[in-house]
Amino acid sequence: MKNVKIAYIGGGSQQWALHLMADLALSKTLSGSLVLYDINNEAAEKNKEVSKHIFSRPEATGKFEVEVEADLDRALAGADFVVISIEPGPTENRFIDLKIPEKYGIYQSVGDTTGPGGIARAIRSIPVMADFANHIMDVCPDAWVINYTNPMAWCTAALVAAQPNIKAVGCCHEVFHTQEMLCKWVSEHYDVPLPARHDIKLDIAGVNHFTFATGAQWNGKDIFEEFKSAMKPLDVDTLKANAANRTKEELWFDSDFEIAKDLFKRFGVLGAAGDRHLAEFIPWYIKSGEELNSWGVVLTPYEWRVKRQASQDEARQEFLESDLKPSGEEGVLMIEALSGAADKPCRTQVNMPNTGQNNFAPLGSIVESYGLVSENKIETVSCGILPAAVQSLVSRNLTVQGLVLEGVMENDKEKIFSGFMIDPLVANSPRDCEALFEELWTALENLKD
Amino acid sequence: MKNVKIAYIGGGSQQWALHLMADLALSKTLSGSLVLYDINNEAAEKNKEVSKHIFSRPEATGKFEVEVEADLDRALAGADFVVISIEPGPTENRFIDLKIPEKYGIYQSVGDTTGPGGIARAIRSIPVMADFANHIMDVCPDAWVINYTNPMAWCTAALVAAQPNIKAVGCCHEVFHTQEMLCKWVSEHYDVPLPARHDIKLDIAGVNHFTFATGAQWNGKDIFEEFKSAMKPLDVDTLKANAANRTKEELWFDSDFEIAKDLFKRFGVLGAAGDRHLAEFIPWYIKSGEELNSWGVVLTPYEWRVKRQASQDEARQEFLESDLKPSGEEGVLMIEALSGAADKPCRTQVNMPNTGQNNFAPLGSIVESYGLVSENKIETVSCGILPAAVQSLVSRNLTVQGLVLEGVMENDKEKIFSGFMIDPLVANSPRDCEALFEELWTALENLKD
Amino acid sequence: MKNVKIAYIGGGSQQWALHLMADLALSKTLSGSLVLYDINNEAAEKNKEVSKHIFSRPEATGKFEVEVEADLDRALAGADFVVISIEPGPTENRFIDLKIPEKYGIYQSVGDTTGPGGIARAIRSIPVMADFANHIMDVCPDAWVINYTNPMAWCTAALVAAQPNIKAVGCCHEVFHTQEMLCKWVSEHYDVPLPARHDIKLDIAGVNHFTFATGAQWNGKDIFEEFKSAMKPLDVDTLKANAANRTKEELWFDSDFEIAKDLFKRFGVLGAAGDRHLAEFIPWYIKSGEELNSWGVVLTPYEWRVKRQASQDEARQEFLESDLKPSGEEGVLMIEALSGAADKPCRTQVNMPNTGQNNFAPLGSIVESYGLVSENKIETVSCGILPAAVQSLVSRNLTVQGLVLEGVMENDKEKIFSGFMIDPLVANSPRDCEALFEELWTALENLKD
Amino acid sequence: MKNVKIAYIGGGSQQWALHLMADLALSKTLSGSLVLYDINNEAAEKNKEVSKHIFSRPEATGKFEVEVEADLDRALAGADFVVISIEPGPTENRFIDLKIPEKYGIYQSVGDTTGPGGIARAIRSIPVMADFANHIMDVCPDAWVINYTNPMAWCTAALVAAQPNIKAVGCCHEVFHTQEMLCKWVSEHYDVPLPARHDIKLDIAGVNHFTFATGAQWNGKDIFEEFKSAMKPLDVDTLKANAANRTKEELWFDSDFEIAKDLFKRFGVLGAAGDRHLAEFIPWYIKSGEELNSWGVVLTPYEWRVKRQASQDEARQEFLESDLKPSGEEGVLMIEALSGAADKPCRTQVNMPNTGQNNFAPLGSIVESYGLVSENKIETVSCGILPAAVQSLVSRNLTVQGLVLEGVMENDKEKIFSGFMIDPLVANSPRDCEALFEELWTALENLKD
Repeated sequence: MKNVKIAYIGGGSQQWALHLMADLALSKTLSGSLVLYDINNEAAEKNKEVSKHIFSRPEATGKFEVEVEADLDRALAGADFVVISIEPGPTENRFIDLKIPEKYGIYQSVGDTTGPGGIARAIRSIPVMADFANHIMDVCPDAWVINYTNPMAWCTAALVAAQPNIKAVGCCHEVFHTQEMLCKWVSEHYDVPLPARHDIKLDIAGVNHFTFATGAQWNGKDIFEEFKSAMKPLDVDTLKANAANRTKEELWFDSDFEIAKDLFKRFGVLGAAGDRHLAEFIPWYIKSGEELNSWGVVLTPYEWRVKRQASQDEARQEFLESDLKPSGEEGVLMIEALSGAADKPCRTQVNMPNTGQNNFAPLGSIVESYGLVSENKIETVSCGILPAAVQSLVSRNLTVQGLVLEGVMENDKEKIFSGFMIDPLVANSPRDCEALFEELWTALENLKD
Repeated sequence: MKNVKIAYIGGGSQQWALHLMADLALSKTLSGSLVLYDINNEAAEKNKEVSKHIFSRPEATGKFEVEVEADLDRALAGADFVVISIEPGPTENRFIDLKIPEKYGIYQSVGDTTGPGGIARAIRSIPVMADFANHIMDVCPDAWVINYTNPMAWCTAALVAAQPNIKAVGCCHEVFHTQEMLCKWVSEHYDVPLPARHDIKLDIAGVNHFTFATGAQWNGKDIFEEFKSAMKPLDVDTLKANAANRTKEELWFDSDFEIAKDLFKRFGVLGAAGDRHLAEFIPWYIKSGEELNSWGVVLTPYEWRVKRQASQDEARQEFLESDLKPSGEEGVLMIEALSGAADKPCRTQVNMPNTGQNNFAPLGSIVESYGLVSENKIETVSCGILPAAVQSLVSRNLTVQGLVLEGVMENDKEKIFSGFMIDPLVANSPRDCEALFEELWTALENLKD
Repeated sequence: MKNVKIAYIGGGSQQWALHLMADLALSKTLSGSLVLYDINNEAAEKNKEVSKHIFSRPEATGKFEVEVEADLDRALAGADFVVISIEPGPTENRFIDLKIPEKYGIYQSVGDTTGPGGIARAIRSIPVMADFANHIMDVCPDAWVINYTNPMAWCTAALVAAQPNIKAVGCCHEVFHTQEMLCKWVSEHYDVPLPARHDIKLDIAGVNHFTFATGAQWNGKDIFEEFKSAMKPLDVDTLKANAANRTKEELWFDSDFEIAKDLFKRFGVLGAAGDRHLAEFIPWYIKSGEELNSWGVVLTPYEWRVKRQASQDEARQEFLESDLKPSGEEGVLMIEALSGAADKPCRTQVNMPNTGQNNFAPLGSIVESYGLVSENKIETVSCGILPAAVQSLVSRNLTVQGLVLEGVMENDKEKIFSGFMIDPLVANSPRDCEALFEELWTALENLKD
Repeated sequence: MKNVKIAYIGGGSQQWALHLMADLALSKTLSGSLVLYDINNEAAEKNKEVSKHIFSRPEATGKFEVEVEADLDRALAGADFVVISIEPGPTENRFIDLKIPEKYGIYQSVGDTTGPGGIARAIRSIPVMADFANHIMDVCPDAWVINYTNPMAWCTAALVAAQPNIKAVGCCHEVFHTQEMLCKWVSEHYDVPLPARHDIKLDIAGVNHFTFATGAQWNGKDIFEEFKSAMKPLDVDTLKANAANRTKEELWFDSDFEIAKDLFKRFGVLGAAGDRHLAEFIPWYIKSGEELNSWGVVLTPYEWRVKRQASQDEARQEFLESDLKPSGEEGVLMIEALSGAADKPCRTQVNMPNTGQNNFAPLGSIVESYGLVSENKIETVSCGILPAAVQSLVSRNLTVQGLVLEGVMENDKEKIFSGFMIDPLVANSPRDCEALFEELWTALENLKD
């Protein structure tokens, strides 16, 4: 068993923190200590309580000592790994991201990645992440930093902008869903048992939540073109009914991959993120709530987010009552590989500074690609080459990424606004666009008081 | 007097052809022959009649023999210059460009450059221009080809795509209006007599009709930042009243440069084309007729275009009844400079393949810049560097330019559609977008019958 | 056991072919058939004889049926893998590559990769490889093609230039030696047992035989900077003595890695190829035989190459008399991974078209990087970013690569010459350079008779 | 007459300063004041004496008051133009540039632009130029700065690196000689009277002294390909005799343009600088004194430079005794155009930061191109596209430019060395290369004492 120390920033979260603990408990190669740090110390303490249950279950092979530490530097001291999954302030702050743009007719299905919501969240998050980076490089500069926080690209970019030598990687499970969708298709199309997720291999290129597959294999067999030929769009009535049902059942994260496939049909590359994410990077699918519903997609309501946050204890309770099961996330696989505990490298999606893996993004910008993770090493895999039209769509996002990042780091409001204005979701009248930006800006400034 | 032979393709036009004749008549250094070629031979004959009047006026210093020639190759034989200003088919074809998109909620202020209207027009024009290029390189390969036809970028690109060694340049007077607007501002702001257009010098970069000034001088004095500081947006009510008045008076081409200035305010570079053109490259100002009017801009109606075309003879009559006056165009200045008749080079805007004058456009794509025109030579002037956000907006147009050009030249409908879809004006539901494209495609195919 | 069919072009070779057989025999996961094709059919038959011995040894776990096939298309029929390791014509042709340049004062330590020798060899090889590519895509288009033939970059480029969809990869063991050198250093420096080659992980970027390590780890520990600090150049007398000894002992391939380290010292990145290869890409180390010897490096004599070729049967005899031992090559590991026989992916150096893994090479040019090899898939790993000075040195080679490749494919002698002239080893008077090129050209043309 | 104030840094020079005065005296549109500043104040005073003669001659139309000012800031006060032509320290410092490399077998025909000599001179000059830039931006930030000092690219780059907003341009007459050579050829080839220099128009691209013509016109007629076809290389014996004669007659700057033409023959673009300059950028023509002589070129001896410097007073005397004649330089034409005194723009070669005029150089690096000079404005003209092989040769120089500039500005000796080492003239053993660099470095450091 490899002994590692993990510091968890945002360790009070009832989602990622508990899943990570479960995965650590199920690890056959890792043990050590886990330090929970959270501005909500009470939540961290609650998670510590849950941890006792998790690591003492009979099926727990990985043994971790869990501590809560209210001081960031003490939490980081000696860490081999730093996991970051935070909410930048109370969930109620999402009101700014989601509800202010709605006043201007901009509805976002998620609102944490791009568009006015994502930008507002980035403005809040970038300084926080930069501060973490500074602490990490002071206290544990050799630690690997695994970021789960959205907006993924901006948060990871902020770590690197503040500390260029930080060993940071952004992780996201979004592409898994595309693999799982293809698993189902393979099973049906070839009449075989459901393949495991890892039997589907994709080539991907893009930015987080706006990633495209340029190829797909099932156990080494190329299935990309056959999947394309076999795709048949669902009719609008079915999709609207699906959307209505999802709203009723509160299945906000669910979709039919109809947007992913529509992009495939039109541009020759398969959207490799959930439809609710893909829709936010282009003006077409999300121009109205009806339009979005007509693709089977529903908005995740602000109110539900607040409600869920309030029901954390129930989520913890669930963990106390059920067997350990793997979360499906690959963070612990990465830790096993990076620590040298694994006997083989791990190939998973990563968000890292571009060194060429994306052939058209500016060097240094945060792009999504596969990474090859091995002992103390993450190498990015060179992506497939996207069609010109899709390069243009992704490039727009990368320009916005750069302008907002630089604008926040340099405290240059005009630069931030120039990025805001060219975001594809901001198709408003420039007068309204300016009013929206000013309203967001004021709300964000007020948070500082 | 330098003796030149000019072949005019589209020589039946009552606009450009008559103006060119007037400018030739007023030239102090040119004489020779002008051959009018037009698929509407009758219109060319009418222009020939007008020409007799023009060149026999007492103030006519330039003497040109004007002929009509119904065979293209015979018209081109021996030409030193080929001027192209055509309408690809009857004006009624613009119904496709303008009225079909309106059914899908897309209103274009001009519709001949970009957006669905511009793309439809490009699909019609590219093969025609490519055919001209082939004839020219067969018959008069050393001739300079001056294109006035819109869509400027696509038409010029088609000449070069068909015949890479053609000496072609695209000319447009759009930037003149920006200079004239600044002349007025200088006169008011500094309380001086109205400067001449050429006293204002701009630095420009972009693509035709979506060009940006990165600097401005009045007789060598930098006025760019002062103009920016002094700008005050007109209020919406005034602008709406202006729009209403323009509609009433049929002043379709008029504007207050409020969009040009709004871009200046937001991005630090001044839009250097009329507002009706600028508005079509971005989704913001033209999302509805009301929005457009609120910037003082009105749509040029299809019906008016048809009506004007029908009143050609009246336009010709005007020429018969008035003194010769310079058109303000610079085509004849260019011919004087290229033929060696001028005693100094001419600096004017040109649309030519990028060899670096635009630092971010793909090499070979058609960009707008200043050109230095001298004997048998046009050199492009390296443009100022645009801000990142504006580069992104212009790059989108360049990607559309490339996809549609290649698509038409290669007869690849899917490639054309991928360009169509990412055009910023096509913010419709993808289902509607596809329906619109198919309706346009069918209408364009029907023209071939 | 996974059943595969391997076609071996150049199957009469006594080097690579026999080693491959030994590795196949030692494979625990592969069996199937191996078809030997060679223009020297007799040599292939001899290898078949040796194969009987190899696959019947008691330690042979992999069982392969070995056939000789004199018709290329029949050899390729049904192949899952095509291995290419050929000599383009008799070894005596190397007289052209090596002896003609010597008349002009250009001595090459190897002469098969770059410089006049490499270019002459490329001119001979490119059409041959292009022809193979055409046959392969006709007969077995799904096969993976593993090329071992030098000049590696040009031969692999020729396959792709002729057939863009070919699944080709170029493999070279050169970087292994750098790893082994570091193994020794680790053992001495840290006083530990000699690590295995795979315990040393490099980051590499460049072109084949002119590759640079931008980082190095030993079991996850970064040793790059410590190795740099600890380097101490050997004195010139020692190096000359080493060179003299190597000449005497015919240890042509041996070196002290003093050039690799000298590059490290001067540019901050470690040369990751044998010194005899590195020396040929830059004018400094090889300006004379004495200079080369003063770095401990000796020229591999043409005469020895001819002699060795003549002693093939002895080499075969050795195989008959000794136990099977792994060759150290990774070709069979790649076949195991590509065929799906392996339980983990294989990370090894590959030469493949640039899709961004090298951030400064033209897209499509053949560059060396690590590759991640898994079932029916090779992904290239994005390289580290080289310092500006080294980018410039490598870029020169890439320009030569492009000009010679295009020149040969287009039969454009002038283009080939323009690449020849800027090769760093050709520092002669341009008059001599032209004479040398003409002499090479004539000799190459004469081969065709 | 336009009134301008010109500050001349290096105003004691007997070359450029006197020629500039003569040109100013012959100007029909300029008058004003000229302030001479020089660290050798005595030389400036002597020039002031000469000036009295120059501006009082009957043919002097331009009237300038000439003053000497020993304080830089006072010299700059109120300047509209700053001309810089300095020697960074006594001519004897060139011993370092020229004589130290000779000890290592590197002979440079000029030694002030590139190669070890040029780099040594750059290391001396960059801080001096940076200091000038700081003073200028403090005292007269609106002045145009015309630099004549070599190494042209580095000196101009230093001005811009220190003060990005400086209005600086580097001017060099080297391309004039290529025009004059073509004038002679036109006269002989077409049997016409000798054309004026300006009747020959070139397209050029490259860096100062390593510029290439991609086209040439004589009064608008393309003569490029005909000149190429008509070129016949002189035989080696003639060239050697020419070289011997040049040595005897001390005609160091003379050549037969045989290197320029050899480059044309091999690469399709005509070297557009004197052979003594072209030879220094590539290893071929200058590998030995004999080689250089065999192209008709001779080295300008260090001793002659010292001798000439010592004979300044004789040079001044010449000016006192002869009629005013135009220098052939275009500096005063530029001042006339920039000040608004000229009635037409001036097209001349300029060295300015790349904004795209050179399509492959890094943005911001100093490249040579034509410039269009008008009132308070210099625009660079987009260059022709060079062939791939020549791009590679020029790119190498640009990389050296960047590394040495950055190295000196950042005081990073290792970075400077990495640029030094890849200079094409440094083909020595790396051990000698290091020794040479250290000897240069020490000599340069000693100058500071």
